[in-house]
Amino acid sequence: MLQELFTPSVQHALDLAGIFVFAISGALLAVRKNFDVFGMAVLAEVTALGGGLLRDLIIGAVPPAAFTDLGYFLMPLVATALVFFLHPVVERIQSGVNVFDAAGLGLFCVTGTTKAYEYGLGLTSSAVLGVATAAGGGVLRDVLANEVPSLLRWDRDLYAVPAIVGATMVALFIRFDTLNALTSSLAVVTAFAIRLLAMRFHWRAPRAWNRRSTATEEV
Amino acid sequence: MLQELFTPSVQHALDLAGIFVFAISGALLAVRKNFDVFGMAVLAEVTALGGGLLRDLIIGAVPPAAFTDLGYFLMPLVATALVFFLHPVVERIQSGVNVFDAAGLGLFCVTGTTKAYEYGLGLTSSAVLGVATAAGGGVLRDVLANEVPSLLRWDRDLYAVPAIVGATMVALFIRFDTLNALTSSLAVVTAFAIRLLAMRFHWRAPRAWNRRSTATEEV
Amino acid sequence: MLQELFTPSVQHALDLAGIFVFAISGALLAVRKNFDVFGMAVLAEVTALGGGLLRDLIIGAVPPAAFTDLGYFLMPLVATALVFFLHPVVERIQSGVNVFDAAGLGLFCVTGTTKAYEYGLGLTSSAVLGVATAAGGGVLRDVLANEVPSLLRWDRDLYAVPAIVGATMVALFIRFDTLNALTSSLAVVTAFAIRLLAMRFHWRAPRAWNRRSTATEEV
Repeated sequence: MLQELFTPSVQHALDLAGIFVFAISGALLAVRKNFDVFGMAVLAEVTALGGGLLRDLIIGAVPPAAFTDLGYFLMPLVATALVFFLHPVVERIQSGVNVFDAAGLGLFCVTGTTKAYEYGLGLTSSAVLGVATAAGGGVLRDVLANEVPSLLRWDRDLYAVPAIVGATMVALFIRFDTLNALTSSLAVVTAFAIRLLAMRFHWRAPRAWNRRSTATEEV
Repeated sequence: MLQELFTPSVQHALDLAGIFVFAISGALLAVRKNFDVFGMAVLAEVTALGGGLLRDLIIGAVPPAAFTDLGYFLMPLVATALVFFLHPVVERIQSGVNVFDAAGLGLFCVTGTTKAYEYGLGLTSSAVLGVATAAGGGVLRDVLANEVPSLLRWDRDLYAVPAIVGATMVALFIRFDTLNALTSSLAVVTAFAIRLLAMRFHWRAPRAWNRRSTATEEV
Repeated sequence: MLQELFTPSVQHALDLAGIFVFAISGALLAVRKNFDVFGMAVLAEVTALGGGLLRDLIIGAVPPAAFTDLGYFLMPLVATALVFFLHPVVERIQSGVNVFDAAGLGLFCVTGTTKAYEYGLGLTSSAVLGVATAAGGGVLRDVLANEVPSLLRWDRDLYAVPAIVGATMVALFIRFDTLNALTSSLAVVTAFAIRLLAMRFHWRAPRAWNRRSTATEEV
């Protein structure tokens, strides 16, 4: 049942699209960090596949999908080539890229949660892994680039919340046995929309109360 | 036999306590790094569960305990809420936190070694994984926060040594078939005490001989 | 068949040699970062075993070889002791170390690809994991040391290319059923030679076209 959320071909096309846009963000950061073309490819692959790879290792789905589906591996290389030759253009359409990235975020938090549940994890753990699938790649990208993960920074628009909402919706749909293509799509769209609104209105998450101004502040 | 080191309930309570104090240290670093509440939660979870997660992936215990025991996941969120609302208070009792962290270090190097051995690893590998269980979360915490892991820095009080001693004691107890609740507790207390003494007297580990003053010194 | 590329003893000796030289590079970086002796040991172990560990987790070979072969674990400790006591000497023969590191690179990209294929992965994935086996440890080393991975930096001599060439050759040999001790050795030597030439003539990989001078440039 769960496998049939979407027709396999549609699901696969959506996965490849999400992987592609995540890879773009990795390749762009690599350019900003002045990495060479191989650094761009590594960062593109890690950003696009890192979250799902982490999830698959944790649920015991080895070899991970990233290493069994050639398309998953090739897509980031296409993104790397695109950024390599058309970097200024891609930068110019950054906002467009962000929209696609939001779409990838919404898609992966849903598919990640679903796959984790299919592998027998509890609803909470599945939702957590859904969020990890969607946001993990970006964290690995920033760690490899030796930057503070933007996921953790307060001065970035909400990124975790949309994924948490989407993953939680899926968990609830599963809990009440109402998960299907329609409800899944609803979760994807909701996470997608929340991310877009967060970018549009620069929503931020609160920081701890009564912080003293931090000397070690590096962000 | 090994499973019965402590009664399950006692063992579980100790695990949760260790997870809690490790999570506190993660949340506190997140505040110092000026992260938002989600960054605090991520760092708390990673610090508390990262070491055991790494161990479980290596010994093939999937899904890892961190994803099968809801308490393991919720405890860091409690720690995050506590730090979020009472940060200055928690900071003030930092030394108290350090004592609990030392307790967690002692506990996890023992339970980690024991679990690795139960999964069929050799004594040396088990001890190594015991140390990784105890110290790994802190390393991941520092890596995510884009800091030089304090485990590696010479200007920090001994942290690896207590875990190494505790894990080695467990390995020897297993080797001579004398591992039981009493000897395990002895290993925990020994590691705990060594860490406390290291903090009290600022014990440091030596650095390489004849270093030239290092230009790249960033610590 | 594949298992018999080299006689087990020869293969094992080569592995230990590669692990040793990788560990040296890890321990040397630890000294430059002013880490203590435990930081040196951790960085040596991670650099030497990290790539293979990552590969084994991905192909499902648990517990990883790093935790089943005591020699794999002890070799980095020997390297650490050597650097600890003879740091200036080791630094002086840095170029010699680089030659051995190049040999390790060539060896591991071949053995990594072969092992991944033996575990049922496709040719492309196997080659990718071969490269990850050879270069992954160095990336983990730099991440733990809080440095931008030299693998990604444009101002470093080619490091990925030799591994990619070696791994690709192995994949092709497997594809055309001509993988044997001789062809494997050829792949090792080719990767080794390319790395030596890259160091000798400071070959660099290109960066993205039309970059603007990057403010965030930190390399």
